[in-house]
Amino acid sequence: MSEKTAITPATHTAPPAKFSHGVRKGNILQVAGQVGFLPAVEGQPPTPAGPALREQTLQTLANVKAVLEAGGASWDDVMMTRVYLTDVDHFAEMNAIYNTYFEEQGLKEPASARTTVYVGLPKGLLIEIDALAVLG
Amino acid sequence: MSEKTAITPATHTAPPAKFSHGVRKGNILQVAGQVGFLPAVEGQPPTPAGPALREQTLQTLANVKAVLEAGGASWDDVMMTRVYLTDVDHFAEMNAIYNTYFEEQGLKEPASARTTVYVGLPKGLLIEIDALAVLG
Amino acid sequence: MSEKTAITPATHTAPPAKFSHGVRKGNILQVAGQVGFLPAVEGQPPTPAGPALREQTLQTLANVKAVLEAGGASWDDVMMTRVYLTDVDHFAEMNAIYNTYFEEQGLKEPASARTTVYVGLPKGLLIEIDALAVLG
Repeated sequence: MSEKTAITPATHTAPPAKFSHGVRKGNILQVAGQVGFLPAVEGQPPTPAGPALREQTLQTLANVKAVLEAGGASWDDVMMTRVYLTDVDHFAEMNAIYNTYFEEQGLKEPASARTTVYVGLPKGLLIEIDALAVLG
Repeated sequence: MSEKTAITPATHTAPPAKFSHGVRKGNILQVAGQVGFLPAVEGQPPTPAGPALREQTLQTLANVKAVLEAGGASWDDVMMTRVYLTDVDHFAEMNAIYNTYFEEQGLKEPASARTTVYVGLPKGLLIEIDALAVLG
Repeated sequence: MSEKTAITPATHTAPPAKFSHGVRKGNILQVAGQVGFLPAVEGQPPTPAGPALREQTLQTLANVKAVLEAGGASWDDVMMTRVYLTDVDHFAEMNAIYNTYFEEQGLKEPASARTTVYVGLPKGLLIEIDALAVLG
């Protein structure tokens, strides 16, 4: 019997509803959909990094990583990322940012699988990413 | 070697294709995308609860729960829900309904992770939810 | 401690970014979003099967199967498929193709769960499918 634990990085704003930024149970860790919000500032509404796709993508990846690390995992443990973009024309640029980011992470394990689709997101948000990790 | 079993709640209409409403194998239970169809009535086509987002959301959550329970699980075992809405303007209302629903469920474990995105759905449907659970 | 391995079928074009077509760790295998690209031909850009939904859907399913098999799994191990279509009007036709395909696969285990939503995809692509499998 494994305990299910909620993961809440110190940098994160409170979720806007009754869900957790991440949960871990046994060796499985699920990261909720992260967007490009800058680290939370007391008394201020969540603000996305900006102004462009680059800043939002990097902040989103940093937010996913923060959940992984607060849950005792790393990018090396990630099996799948789901990338939600709002505009098909952002695909090439996002891939370039994604590639450089992961090169800089110095992963020891193979890159995760990934699915990218194009959806609607709340106004001002250009990208959302979630992740499934399997530890050790 | 664990057996893979299909989960089919008695209240559910037959899936419109060769998939299962839920499957369980070992301690992993996957709930297929559920929509707000009312309990199946012999000889009638599937009908969504209505007329508004509230009724559809609550019926959808009830349908996810029915699959979880028919598979020997509960909301406490859910690691991730994926919420698909058709309209960004429904986010705040869906969250309010979602929060009240889960407060009333009296969960013992932390809330699951969640991703919400905005997609197209068949005519008349406003919300779809699927879930991944890890038992024990 | 299980090793995480990348799965790259010989028929596949290189992923357009730093992700793997599939990854396996322990008994969990995740297939990345597959589209209807024909088997890779050296020196040529990826080309989708066509011209219609039928050919793309069957090629996409073949591509998912290739990843499963290269990772030591089969359709029988799949817990969940996620089907992304671009047009709600394709639902009935896709289901008919999907059903016939799986009847012909002669599965020993129950059909997987499934979620189908309607999203944007890069120009020329009508369908994308990913899959989560649990082995043994």
